[in-house]
Amino acid sequence: MFKKLREQCWKANLELPKLGLVIYTFGNVSSIDRNRGVFAIKPSGVDYDRMEPKDMVIVDLDGNVVDGELRPSSDVNTHLVLYNAFPHIGGIVHTHSTHAVAWAQALRPVPIYGTTHADHLAGDIPCTPLMADERIANDYETETGNQIVESFRAEKLNPDEIQMVLVAGHGPFTWGVNAEKAVYHAKVLEELCRMAYLTERINPDAPRLKASLIEKHYSRKHGKNAYYGQKN
Amino acid sequence: MFKKLREQCWKANLELPKLGLVIYTFGNVSSIDRNRGVFAIKPSGVDYDRMEPKDMVIVDLDGNVVDGELRPSSDVNTHLVLYNAFPHIGGIVHTHSTHAVAWAQALRPVPIYGTTHADHLAGDIPCTPLMADERIANDYETETGNQIVESFRAEKLNPDEIQMVLVAGHGPFTWGVNAEKAVYHAKVLEELCRMAYLTERINPDAPRLKASLIEKHYSRKHGKNAYYGQKN
Amino acid sequence: MFKKLREQCWKANLELPKLGLVIYTFGNVSSIDRNRGVFAIKPSGVDYDRMEPKDMVIVDLDGNVVDGELRPSSDVNTHLVLYNAFPHIGGIVHTHSTHAVAWAQALRPVPIYGTTHADHLAGDIPCTPLMADERIANDYETETGNQIVESFRAEKLNPDEIQMVLVAGHGPFTWGVNAEKAVYHAKVLEELCRMAYLTERINPDAPRLKASLIEKHYSRKHGKNAYYGQKN
Amino acid sequence: MFKKLREQCWKANLELPKLGLVIYTFGNVSSIDRNRGVFAIKPSGVDYDRMEPKDMVIVDLDGNVVDGELRPSSDVNTHLVLYNAFPHIGGIVHTHSTHAVAWAQALRPVPIYGTTHADHLAGDIPCTPLMADERIANDYETETGNQIVESFRAEKLNPDEIQMVLVAGHGPFTWGVNAEKAVYHAKVLEELCRMAYLTERINPDAPRLKASLIEKHYSRKHGKNAYYGQKN
Repeated sequence: MFKKLREQCWKANLELPKLGLVIYTFGNVSSIDRNRGVFAIKPSGVDYDRMEPKDMVIVDLDGNVVDGELRPSSDVNTHLVLYNAFPHIGGIVHTHSTHAVAWAQALRPVPIYGTTHADHLAGDIPCTPLMADERIANDYETETGNQIVESFRAEKLNPDEIQMVLVAGHGPFTWGVNAEKAVYHAKVLEELCRMAYLTERINPDAPRLKASLIEKHYSRKHGKNAYYGQKN
Repeated sequence: MFKKLREQCWKANLELPKLGLVIYTFGNVSSIDRNRGVFAIKPSGVDYDRMEPKDMVIVDLDGNVVDGELRPSSDVNTHLVLYNAFPHIGGIVHTHSTHAVAWAQALRPVPIYGTTHADHLAGDIPCTPLMADERIANDYETETGNQIVESFRAEKLNPDEIQMVLVAGHGPFTWGVNAEKAVYHAKVLEELCRMAYLTERINPDAPRLKASLIEKHYSRKHGKNAYYGQKN
Repeated sequence: MFKKLREQCWKANLELPKLGLVIYTFGNVSSIDRNRGVFAIKPSGVDYDRMEPKDMVIVDLDGNVVDGELRPSSDVNTHLVLYNAFPHIGGIVHTHSTHAVAWAQALRPVPIYGTTHADHLAGDIPCTPLMADERIANDYETETGNQIVESFRAEKLNPDEIQMVLVAGHGPFTWGVNAEKAVYHAKVLEELCRMAYLTERINPDAPRLKASLIEKHYSRKHGKNAYYGQKN
Repeated sequence: MFKKLREQCWKANLELPKLGLVIYTFGNVSSIDRNRGVFAIKPSGVDYDRMEPKDMVIVDLDGNVVDGELRPSSDVNTHLVLYNAFPHIGGIVHTHSTHAVAWAQALRPVPIYGTTHADHLAGDIPCTPLMADERIANDYETETGNQIVESFRAEKLNPDEIQMVLVAGHGPFTWGVNAEKAVYHAKVLEELCRMAYLTERINPDAPRLKASLIEKHYSRKHGKNAYYGQKN
């Protein structure tokens, strides 16, 4: 019944270890079918190399498991909040990729130092505040999602333009128009974090990329005047 | 006679080079059968790609070789001390993995900076003191085990909860309920050491993860209220 | 009609992900046929593993697409400027390889610290100035090429001897007598950037290699007294 | 005629790219037959994946090519000096491996920070002085060998115990009782350089390993009381 959705989700999950973004079960991908109002997500704690499409768990937008024999990822409620708050996103990825985690543990947004970064987003990669104790004691995974959404609102960030975030002390979440694009952003984020780390070592006074170059590179690839890639 | 035990041990040893944790013969795994009171351990100085299950050496809990034609790992007495002192552990790993060795050589415990760490243990990764000269001159490998056990007692650490340690100036030992889990901890330790290294470079003032987040993440995966993974 | 040229270009493009120099579509190679006055270049935004030789786009030295069904790389005008300004080069590579981007983002030329560097060029790896706003607003990719050419003229660098450059805030361009050699320089550049990065960490006061050693190593491999490699 | 010697040399050369120690032609291995007074060495500038055993060049201890159709490695005279000065060594390796080059470019010996290092040598990894201009102008590769030999004599180092060296501003040479062991030392050296680099970042005040631990680890593996590995 949810065969195609499960296959997309399963395939996107398998990309994570191939791209060097996760070891063991350190990550998960979900993929949503907006028409039916359900998403498929990795089951909790199951190894990537033993997982089959049928193991993907189908969850509706109220958080109910509607199909599947396994428990969904323990992060399912974070995915749920993001799908409800960001209506255009089609897939979500959570990893513990090394350099993204290091920036999250350092409690720092990633400064936009170059065009590789500006090709994908036109500002720093945001980092949420550390979660307050009462929220941790509450429904932790839901609050993780809330914190991301509140950060975007507080900083007036557009989740259709900035498709990645660091959760302070924890690690990255990324999303995109579909699960495949969300995985793409997870890989790009890890690489941007590594480049920014090296840039600061090589020149502790390296400035952010200037606005005109950010604007140029971002608009080459995004928006109505984009000219990167092939015409559809 | 010890066919299954040897196979478990051999298989776990082969994981070390595959996971990038050892080059050449820089590591060893042992696996214990508590009912029979014997453990299997890698033979000393034998290449991973030439090793067969039959080459694993069977040792009893007094340190006697009870079966096998080769010499056991030169670290056998360290394994012996740990099996005798920590009654619930089923497997032990020693490696010289790069980032774990770097912290051990830096003579520093690894601060708990994030949730990746807290998913596995609820405090810093301990580092023993440097061994005193008279102990080095004595039975060195036994004393290495003693030093680990004494460190855990002095700091009131529970070896069923903290399943990894750095031996100062030397490198890591990890353990677990079986050899496979001990290898898992060896890989996780290396990754935690790498993340902590990067975190301190990106923000030299990065704080330890706060207690409420440590508690939340550790208890998600461990203890009676754990909800990560599948029901058994 | 342009079968051989397309094959050379295609093959050289495929080397980039194999050598770890690009992820996704983060790079491009072109290859010129000087006799016919045309070059083949990677199509824009097409994945390396889906690309076939026929997809390479043929462009003349006025920048007109003369054959091919896809749009050329968005960087085509940078390649065009370089082919017109540097008459002996036969291939050009652009990547976003990690360490080269880090130096470009740090806005620093790469100091010549050792013989690995001197085996390939006899001075620092140049880094252009950041582009002025009015040039960015103009034809950006053409201006990127202009900026490289002007940097070489201002610093009196010979593009037949220094076959690599960092574009400030962006990343590397390399070239060579053919596309294969340009790819070779892209890989060597990434490695030189990584070595220089590490050198400065290990010794912040490390001096540039002395002139006599630079001269010795460069002339071992280049010019009429070269004695490295086989006689042709 | 030199079939076995060529095969050993060829096989050892092929290990270098497999172990991640060289890219392209950035390294060479030689293997000596002491009874016949000749050694086999990699030909200059030939790619590892195109090389066949017959391409190895046979050179005598006066530096004459006695068999082979290709030019020997441009570093042949460095190998020659080392074979003549160090009578017990059976193989020599030169690479430009990343971390070893970084220490050589930083002009620093590698401090002995831990037991991984002490398992292989009982002191710092030496680094030669920078070569004087008049020696560079002379027979450069011979002088590179001379400089290594003089460094060992000046510091009273035993080449049978310390089987690796950094040539200042250049990179590493390693050796061993045969070519296979020399390659082993090249890999170990790269790893020790990486560990020492990380150790100094994690703790800039990290002390050298204390003498009793150095002595213990070195003598576990070397000399008449060694007990590591299997009895022969």
